[in-house]
Amino acid sequence: MHIDTLIHARWIIPVEPTAVCHEYHSLAINDGKIIDLLPTVEAEQKYQATHVEHCLQHALIPGLINSHTHAAMTLMRGVADDLPLMDWLQNHIWPLESKWMSAAFVKDGTDLAIAEMIRGGTTCFNDMYFFPDITAQQAIRHGIRASVGLILIDFPTVWADNSDMYLEKGLALHDQMRHQPLITTPFAPHAPYTVSDEALQRMHTLADDLELPVHMHVHETQNEITQQLQQTGQRPLQRLQKLGLINPSFIAVHMTQLKDSEIKMFSEAGAHIVHCPESNLKLASGFCPVAKCLAAGINVALGTDGAASNNDLDMFGEMRTAALLGKGVAEDASAVPAMTALTMATLNGAKALGIEHITGSLQIGKAADVVAVNLDELETLPIYDPISHIVYAAGRQQVTDVWVAGKRLLKQRQLTTLDVADLKLKMTLWQGRLQERV
Amino acid sequence: MHIDTLIHARWIIPVEPTAVCHEYHSLAINDGKIIDLLPTVEAEQKYQATHVEHCLQHALIPGLINSHTHAAMTLMRGVADDLPLMDWLQNHIWPLESKWMSAAFVKDGTDLAIAEMIRGGTTCFNDMYFFPDITAQQAIRHGIRASVGLILIDFPTVWADNSDMYLEKGLALHDQMRHQPLITTPFAPHAPYTVSDEALQRMHTLADDLELPVHMHVHETQNEITQQLQQTGQRPLQRLQKLGLINPSFIAVHMTQLKDSEIKMFSEAGAHIVHCPESNLKLASGFCPVAKCLAAGINVALGTDGAASNNDLDMFGEMRTAALLGKGVAEDASAVPAMTALTMATLNGAKALGIEHITGSLQIGKAADVVAVNLDELETLPIYDPISHIVYAAGRQQVTDVWVAGKRLLKQRQLTTLDVADLKLKMTLWQGRLQERV
Repeated sequence: MHIDTLIHARWIIPVEPTAVCHEYHSLAINDGKIIDLLPTVEAEQKYQATHVEHCLQHALIPGLINSHTHAAMTLMRGVADDLPLMDWLQNHIWPLESKWMSAAFVKDGTDLAIAEMIRGGTTCFNDMYFFPDITAQQAIRHGIRASVGLILIDFPTVWADNSDMYLEKGLALHDQMRHQPLITTPFAPHAPYTVSDEALQRMHTLADDLELPVHMHVHETQNEITQQLQQTGQRPLQRLQKLGLINPSFIAVHMTQLKDSEIKMFSEAGAHIVHCPESNLKLASGFCPVAKCLAAGINVALGTDGAASNNDLDMFGEMRTAALLGKGVAEDASAVPAMTALTMATLNGAKALGIEHITGSLQIGKAADVVAVNLDELETLPIYDPISHIVYAAGRQQVTDVWVAGKRLLKQRQLTTLDVADLKLKMTLWQGRLQERV
Repeated sequence: MHIDTLIHARWIIPVEPTAVCHEYHSLAINDGKIIDLLPTVEAEQKYQATHVEHCLQHALIPGLINSHTHAAMTLMRGVADDLPLMDWLQNHIWPLESKWMSAAFVKDGTDLAIAEMIRGGTTCFNDMYFFPDITAQQAIRHGIRASVGLILIDFPTVWADNSDMYLEKGLALHDQMRHQPLITTPFAPHAPYTVSDEALQRMHTLADDLELPVHMHVHETQNEITQQLQQTGQRPLQRLQKLGLINPSFIAVHMTQLKDSEIKMFSEAGAHIVHCPESNLKLASGFCPVAKCLAAGINVALGTDGAASNNDLDMFGEMRTAALLGKGVAEDASAVPAMTALTMATLNGAKALGIEHITGSLQIGKAADVVAVNLDELETLPIYDPISHIVYAAGRQQVTDVWVAGKRLLKQRQLTTLDVADLKLKMTLWQGRLQERV
C-alpha cells in the first residue's frame, strides 16, 4: 500500500495504552492521520511511502500539549522576575501591556512562542490572551494545533471595551474558525476576580449552546481566595459551582489552594485541572496537590503558563518539574511517576481541551501529531527505560523532528514554517521598545 | 602585552562583585589565570593574544561548581525511578553496586559524568564515591577541577574492608594528590547512619591536622532523624556537633530537616550547606529551607547529587530548580533571586570546598575557569537581563565553550579531551551488563 509517510523508530511510546514502549516499530501516516503502528519488519513489507524517515536512535512520542499559555508574552520574557503575583502584574506586566498591546505585539510574540514550542516538541497549545484572532491566524500559518481562548475580562483593553464586546468578538472568531481543522475556540474568562457573575452567566449560556470548553485561572493564590471571601462571602470554586460552571467542559488552571472537599466536588463534576508547576513556584503561588487530584480521578493536564512567569515554554522541563514536585508535595517518591507526567503532557491535555478523539496519543485514526526525540546523546546514556529518560534526563534540544497532522514542522532541528533570522530581527526591535520601561 | 588568551564577550557576569553584568568587555588570560577584565575597546589596545575568541552573542560566567556528585553513578542513570530513598538504595542501587563496583566501573562512569558536566558548563565537582583514586586520575586526564572525597563508611566494600582501611587509603590518595593543581581531597564520611562515632573521631583528628574539609550527607530525610533518635538519642546534627565536626570545614549535603535552632547553630559555626533540590524532590526527602538558611548567613552551595537520583548532572537545571523551589518553599516570590542562584552554583561552591581563592568568580588572580553561554537562541530572546536568562531561560546546550585553568575543554560544543564515540561504545557495554538486573 502506498502512503505519505513511514517513520521507522528505535522506540515508540504511544501513551495509549499506557506504559508501553515498542522497540523497532514504525508509524504509518496517510492524509495527516496515523493509519498503522507495527513492527518495522512488517511495515517494510506492507507499506511504500513517499517519505521514509529513519529515527533509529529516537523515541517517538505523541506531540506535547501545552495546556496553558499566554503565547505572546514571550516578548516579556525576563522583563521582571523574583516578584509576587500582584506586584508583578500591576507594576510590570499590565503597564507594559497597556502601553504596547496591539495586533503586531501578539503576532510577533505568538510567532516566537510557536517557534520555541515546535523546537521543544509541543504540537498544540491552549492559549489565553488578547487578539485571539491573530493567535489563531499565526497558528494556522505555521501549522501548529491551537486551542485559542475567547478572552473575557471585565475591564476595557485595546481588544474590547466591555464584556458584551469581548463575547461578541469571541463569537465572531468562533464562527470564523469553525472549519479550521487545527483550531478550537474555548471561552477564556480570565479569573474569578476579574469577571463578574453576570458576564460569566452569559458566557455559560453561550458555551452550553455551542458546546465549547471554558478555560479559566482558578485558585491561583491564597490571596485570590481571601479577597473573594471578603468580597463575595464564597471561595471562588463555590461561586463558580453555583454558576454551574464546574462541569466536564471546565478547565481550571493552577488550583494551588484546594480543600479535600473541593477535590471531591471537582472530581465528581468531571472537570479538568491544568497544573503549571514552574509558574506556581516562580510566583510563589502555592503547590497544587497533584497526586491527590490524580488519585481522586481528576484529569490533570500540564502547562507552562506564559514565558514571562516561567521563563520558557519547555514542556520537557515542565514534565520533569511536575514529576519531581509532585513527589515532594505528596511526600511520596512513587507519586507522579514518569509515565504519569508524560500522560499529563499529552493525552490528559487532549482530554481537557476536548480533542482526545483527534490527538494526545499515537493511536490509529488520530492525527499524526508526532515528536522524535534523539536519545543517543551522552546526557541520556545508558538507556534502561526510554520513558524515564523522556521525563527525567532528556532536554527539549533532543527533539529533532516534529509533525502536526502529518505535516513536518521541524526537520532535523530546522523549522520549516518560520524564518528564524526574521524572528530574531523582530525580537531586537521589541526589546528596544519594551526596554524603555524596564 | 602578549598573553595566552583574550575573550571578547557581549556580556561578562563576574559574580564578584555581585549583580554586575558588564557589556562589551573582555577577559584576559595568561598562564591559566585571569589577569584582566576590561572594556573590549581597551583590551584591544592593551593585549595581543595567541588565542583571540569572539563571544559576541554570549555571556561569560564563572565555571559552575557542582558541589555534590557521585560521578560514576551515571552508569545507573534511570535504572530505577519513582522509589523512596531506602527502597531505591537497598533494592536497586546497592545490589547493582555490590555486583559491579570496580575500578573500571568508576573510570567509565566518571568519564561519562565529566563529559556531561563539561558540556553543561561545570568546571569543578565535589565527589563522593568508591575508587576516588580513579576519579582523581580521570579528572586530571580530562582537565576538570575536582574535589575528590576520601570515602569513609562502616561496612566493607570492594574499595576497603573497614574504617581503618578507608582512612589509610584516603590518606595515601591525599598524599599522592598533594601537588595536583586541579585536585583537592576532603574527607567524605557517607552519612550519620553509616559511620560510627569512633571512625568519625579518628577522621576528625586527621582532617584537623591536614586542614581538609569534611563532606557528608546530613539530615537527608525525616527517617534518618527518627532512626538516629531511636539509636543514639540524638538528632544527627547534635551528634556531629558533639563530635566537633560542625565547623567552617564542614560541608553538609541535603539538610532537608532543620529546626530554627539548628539553622542558628550551623550559621554560628560557619559551616556550609550543599542544597540538592532535584534529588530531594525525586526521592521525596523533604525541602531544604534555603531562603531561611541564606537569611541566617549560611553559605549555601548547589549540587545535582548522582545521576541515578536526578537524573542528570545539569547545573543550569539545578540553578533554576533552586530558584523556583526556594520561592515556593519560602512562600515568597522574591526569595532566591536569579543572582543568588548563580552565586550558589559558583562562588558559594568554591567557598564550601575551600577553594574560593582559586575559583568561583571571574576575578583577577583566580584561575580561568570560564563558561561561554550563547544567548542568541530563540529560547532566550528578547534579552532584558542576561542574569535572569542564565537562570530562568537558558539550557545547558547553550554552553558553547568551557575553559578550566585557561585550558579549553569545550570548543564550539566539541569536547577536546574526551572521545565521544568511545564513550558511547562503553555505555552500550555497561548497559548490557547492568540491564540483567533491571
